Amino acid sequence: MAANDCIFCKIVKKEIPAKIAEEGADWIAFHDIHPKAPLHLLVVPHRHLERLSDAKAEDADFVGRLFLEAARIGRAKSPAGFRLMVNDGSAAGQRVFHIHIHILGQTDME
Amino acid sequence: MAANDCIFCKIVKKEIPAKIAEEGADWIAFHDIHPKAPLHLLVVPHRHLERLSDAKAEDADFVGRLFLEAARIGRAKSPAGFRLMVNDGSAAGQRVFHIHIHILGQTDME
Repeated sequence: MAANDCIFCKIVKKEIPAKIAEEGADWIAFHDIHPKAPLHLLVVPHRHLERLSDAKAEDADFVGRLFLEAARIGRAKSPAGFRLMVNDGSAAGQRVFHIHIHILGQTDME
Repeated sequence: MAANDCIFCKIVKKEIPAKIAEEGADWIAFHDIHPKAPLHLLVVPHRHLERLSDAKAEDADFVGRLFLEAARIGRAKSPAGFRLMVNDGSAAGQRVFHIHIHILGQTDME
């Protein structure tokens, strides 16, 4: 899939709408359209990478900053606890092949 | 909780046993004792931090390397797809307050 056909690239470029929660210099956080919890955000880097496992060793700082932003947002919006989740590959339920971190919270989870 | 009382610190120091899958210079990956999927590993840094959201901006490289190791292991052991999950806080189901990344795989997930 080319980045041209990627729905998350289009959200990043504001070509299609999303309910944006927060934005940084190189990422965007918006509400999942099919929320699985009262709080369900997706943190998406501007950069198009299909799977987290496609990232290379030199991407450690990029990957770390993305997870730290997700953890900061999760804690701010759901201080008692939140879950970060990445589905990598179709068997894991990945549907959009542009890496994204799910933030789930504002409910008690097992 | 002091690191002295931390079960994951004790696993890191080999004071209590675990079924170790792989080890790096500053992390260890072992099998969850209550697996939720055919593949269920925990990636645990040697460093004791209670919650991922306790990490600071200067920890980005440390956090990024940990997730990249988890993604590499997940893809190697479950190429069709795997899930990375971090529970941050008791409401999210965090039971051991030493940060750890769950790797779930070798099954189809929703």
